[in-house]
Amino acid sequence: MTDDRPGVITGKTTLFGILGDPIAQVGSPVQFNRLFRSLDHDAVMLPMRVASADLATAFQGLRALGNLAGLVFTIPHKMPMVELVDELMPNGKRVGAINSARPTADGRWQGDMFDGQGCVNALEANGHSLEGRLVSQMGAGGVGRAIAFAFADRGIARLTVSDLDESRAEKLAADLRAAFPDLAAEAGPPGVGNHDTLVNCTPLGMNPDDPLPFAESDMGGGMLAVDVVLQESLTPYLAAADAKGCAVQTGLQMLEGQVREIARFFGVGTTT
Amino acid sequence: MTDDRPGVITGKTTLFGILGDPIAQVGSPVQFNRLFRSLDHDAVMLPMRVASADLATAFQGLRALGNLAGLVFTIPHKMPMVELVDELMPNGKRVGAINSARPTADGRWQGDMFDGQGCVNALEANGHSLEGRLVSQMGAGGVGRAIAFAFADRGIARLTVSDLDESRAEKLAADLRAAFPDLAAEAGPPGVGNHDTLVNCTPLGMNPDDPLPFAESDMGGGMLAVDVVLQESLTPYLAAADAKGCAVQTGLQMLEGQVREIARFFGVGTTT
Repeated sequence: MTDDRPGVITGKTTLFGILGDPIAQVGSPVQFNRLFRSLDHDAVMLPMRVASADLATAFQGLRALGNLAGLVFTIPHKMPMVELVDELMPNGKRVGAINSARPTADGRWQGDMFDGQGCVNALEANGHSLEGRLVSQMGAGGVGRAIAFAFADRGIARLTVSDLDESRAEKLAADLRAAFPDLAAEAGPPGVGNHDTLVNCTPLGMNPDDPLPFAESDMGGGMLAVDVVLQESLTPYLAAADAKGCAVQTGLQMLEGQVREIARFFGVGTTT
Repeated sequence: MTDDRPGVITGKTTLFGILGDPIAQVGSPVQFNRLFRSLDHDAVMLPMRVASADLATAFQGLRALGNLAGLVFTIPHKMPMVELVDELMPNGKRVGAINSARPTADGRWQGDMFDGQGCVNALEANGHSLEGRLVSQMGAGGVGRAIAFAFADRGIARLTVSDLDESRAEKLAADLRAAFPDLAAEAGPPGVGNHDTLVNCTPLGMNPDDPLPFAESDMGGGMLAVDVVLQESLTPYLAAADAKGCAVQTGLQMLEGQVREIARFFGVGTTT
């Protein structure tokens, strides 16, 4: 029987937080609190709603909490936090976005990015290889950059990225080409003809009346459809992809794929 | 069967915090989380260790958390917080210290003080009347001021207050005389001859090698001995008083005496 409630919280309990706006949809509190409980670790992960305009003030205040041992970041804070931490770990630096930060013994905060590894971990756990894949990706923000770099690490053959902000898509494609000379990375519209993998890295699907990130005509049998949006059931995009015969991976699976890695980054459960 | 664990924490859970330094000893997380659970209220009370030098920064950051609905303050923050909130409720204003603050709909923070009422509530619940009592009190800080004013409200006859900082004791005595012309309030050393009630409002007892706040020769049968220090068992002072035949009231009982009032101040459980 799963028990998602945290353990008793006392004055000795260590705090962790996830910062985002909106915050109601986040899955990290349940995921981490389940892990802490399974490890008998006296800590709790909390939702913290912080507007973009308040991010620097909130982070400044939170780092003054002596029993706060780490933070997780979700939309829209993954890229702005790069400027606010004191030090970037290598993957956070290359991606240019972070989803986690921790304090060192001397009070400096280090940031790193686990979204890409989480997505890859989940795909591989479900038997999907990324080698040679032709990827059409929507969204070149923090999570989009993280997934693109992690997919490139795993040997995809091509990645076409689209973003409402075309310069962001161009920048990601150029950064990928520089880091992976063998990868055909380009900015451009999504298209089914030459793609076998669809990845939504936009927030489309968080609100009920959002349009789909990909047209249904872009989806076909045997493809792989990945979503970063967290919902209790399939997002409309994944439901459409599923109906078209795609294999699907949810935002929750991606989160599950990285919880242990982030916990280790926080110094919790260093043995698997 | 008591179950002190909080309910499941999701992105929709409301946060409350208790700020203090040290923090390990606080009882508020268990007390409030038990209350929230009994009311089926989706909220959690958390320990937050904040050093005095960081208090303004921490509060500035915490008020940027959109899902934080209230804060409780313990040593050493009860007096400094008076300067940091935007508005003082009447008791917080007269006491000159607060132990709770809440945000209004427009984002202003209001502070109030419940320590005195909590102490009186607990004493009265255990059948102790304060009317006409001769009180010897150690400590004229935030909690000391709160208890002195609440005791004066209930008709004690005399209060002698001692503090390492003699000017604080003089100030409290003068403020009491101004507010309660019939009360014999004075600063001075503790002494048993003319007292029937001993109240410790200092942190003495938090550390194992602290001296007792009152000499054992000050304690006598039939007296009432009150402590604000929170410990799982009796503090050394209360254990000594108990051995001398005093009735005793613990810091935990005082906390229990105010949890519902603070929760109501936070807008939780408005019906008893």
